Amino acid sequence: MTDAKFLSFEGIDGCGKSTQAKRLAAHLTTAGQEVVLTREPGGSPGAEAIRQLLLTGATDKWSAETELLLFTAARRDHLERTITPALSAGKMVICDRFADSTRVYQGATRGDLRGKVDQLHSAMIGREPDLTLIIDVDPEIALTRGLARNSGEDRFEDFGLPFQQHLRAGFLALAAQYPQRCRIIDGNRSPEAIFTDVLALATS
Amino acid sequence: MTDAKFLSFEGIDGCGKSTQAKRLAAHLTTAGQEVVLTREPGGSPGAEAIRQLLLTGATDKWSAETELLLFTAARRDHLERTITPALSAGKMVICDRFADSTRVYQGATRGDLRGKVDQLHSAMIGREPDLTLIIDVDPEIALTRGLARNSGEDRFEDFGLPFQQHLRAGFLALAAQYPQRCRIIDGNRSPEAIFTDVLALATS
Ligand SMILES: Nc1ncnc2c1ncn2[C@@H]1O[C@H](COP(=O)(O)OP(=O)(O)O)[C@@H](O)[C@H]1O
Ligand SMILES: Nc1ncnc2c1ncn2[C@@H]1O[C@H](COP(=O)(O)OP(=O)(O)O)[C@@H](O)[C@H]1O
Ligand SMILES: [Mg+2]
Ligand SMILES: [Mg+2]
Repeated sequence: MTDAKFLSFEGIDGCGKSTQAKRLAAHLTTAGQEVVLTREPGGSPGAEAIRQLLLTGATDKWSAETELLLFTAARRDHLERTITPALSAGKMVICDRFADSTRVYQGATRGDLRGKVDQLHSAMIGREPDLTLIIDVDPEIALTRGLARNSGEDRFEDFGLPFQQHLRAGFLALAAQYPQRCRIIDGNRSPEAIFTDVLALATS
Repeated sequence: MTDAKFLSFEGIDGCGKSTQAKRLAAHLTTAGQEVVLTREPGGSPGAEAIRQLLLTGATDKWSAETELLLFTAARRDHLERTITPALSAGKMVICDRFADSTRVYQGATRGDLRGKVDQLHSAMIGREPDLTLIIDVDPEIALTRGLARNSGEDRFEDFGLPFQQHLRAGFLALAAQYPQRCRIIDGNRSPEAIFTDVLALATS
């Protein structure tokens, strides 16, 4: 059992978010907890439709500003239709990426948009996870893992290694900015070793 | 020829915006002017994809807030990829709906969102047409016209007559709020009679 009702996983592509989120949800469900495992962008029918627009196509398909608006639209739908109803029903929500990904992807690395990211977040979202687990990993290792997946949803991975290195620095800076809810986990280890830390932090 | 470089048509569904916008574009093109005729939501490949999400499906498919974010995303893309490049190339832009539709649809009638509409507009769009022609028409007449089209893109028309009446009042209020760029045209007449007014205002 845990006190954190709304938990997010963050970190660069291929760091192990989906792997650990699934594992944590399975573990807590087996332990008798009602858990909703969800992801961003997506997590509700409307947001999944927006996800398709965001993750497929050329890297220059959208400007950073348009992208920011689409991510915020998807998040608003996800929050209204999936996250808030689940929390109201007393369920735990485990979310594979949330607003921190937007802060880092659109805010820290493209077009100096962080001010607009924060403006849109406070106007249209206004909610943070109770606990955010940032899986920190060497971008070269993560990129190799990520490319092995071959999902077709590779618009961001196509930006390449220097972009992933910027992202990593962005997530570490974020952890420093929100020390109360963010915890960094060393992701350069086996899934089992990482999960031991995940479970300890999620249930403490 | 005209001094208004960026002209928008506004008004409720079925008032005759598309009819008059096409007519004006054809007339000015014949007169030798370089004109880009475009529409919202849509007007660029990305924005047209967002249009599909917005105009199809059930009336409760999106909350007013999510809808506002999607309209703003489509507008940003349209502005960056179609409108601004055309204006920079010295062309005239005739736009079938623009930000005023969002102010009226999402702002004046659903969820008391006008404050957020204005906030998003100034943060992410920040541009108004030089001239806005509002075609004012009796909603009962307009609704009959609109339903005759049967385009499948009828999510907003499905809200029904009282909603259209609210919208009409919203557009009239908007004209009062922005008297410098807005002109009201009586749309309860033949297309020919309306066009005479449109042309006079667009070329004065
Ligand atoms: N600790 C790990 N060591 C090695 N491979 C891993 C580890 N965690 C995940 N993977 C593999 O790396 C790839 C990306 O992991 P995933 O959990 O999908 O990352 P993310 O969701 O952060 O992009 C997957 O193929 C996954 O099986
Ligand atoms: N002044 C008019 N009188 C009668 N019918 C009209 C008039 N203007 C347009 N229509 C018809 O009404 C329908 C809606 O017009 P349209 O220009 O598509 O409106 P809007 O773009 O404002 O929704 C179309 O079938 C059109 O041919
Ligand atoms: Mg993943
Ligand atoms: Mg039309």
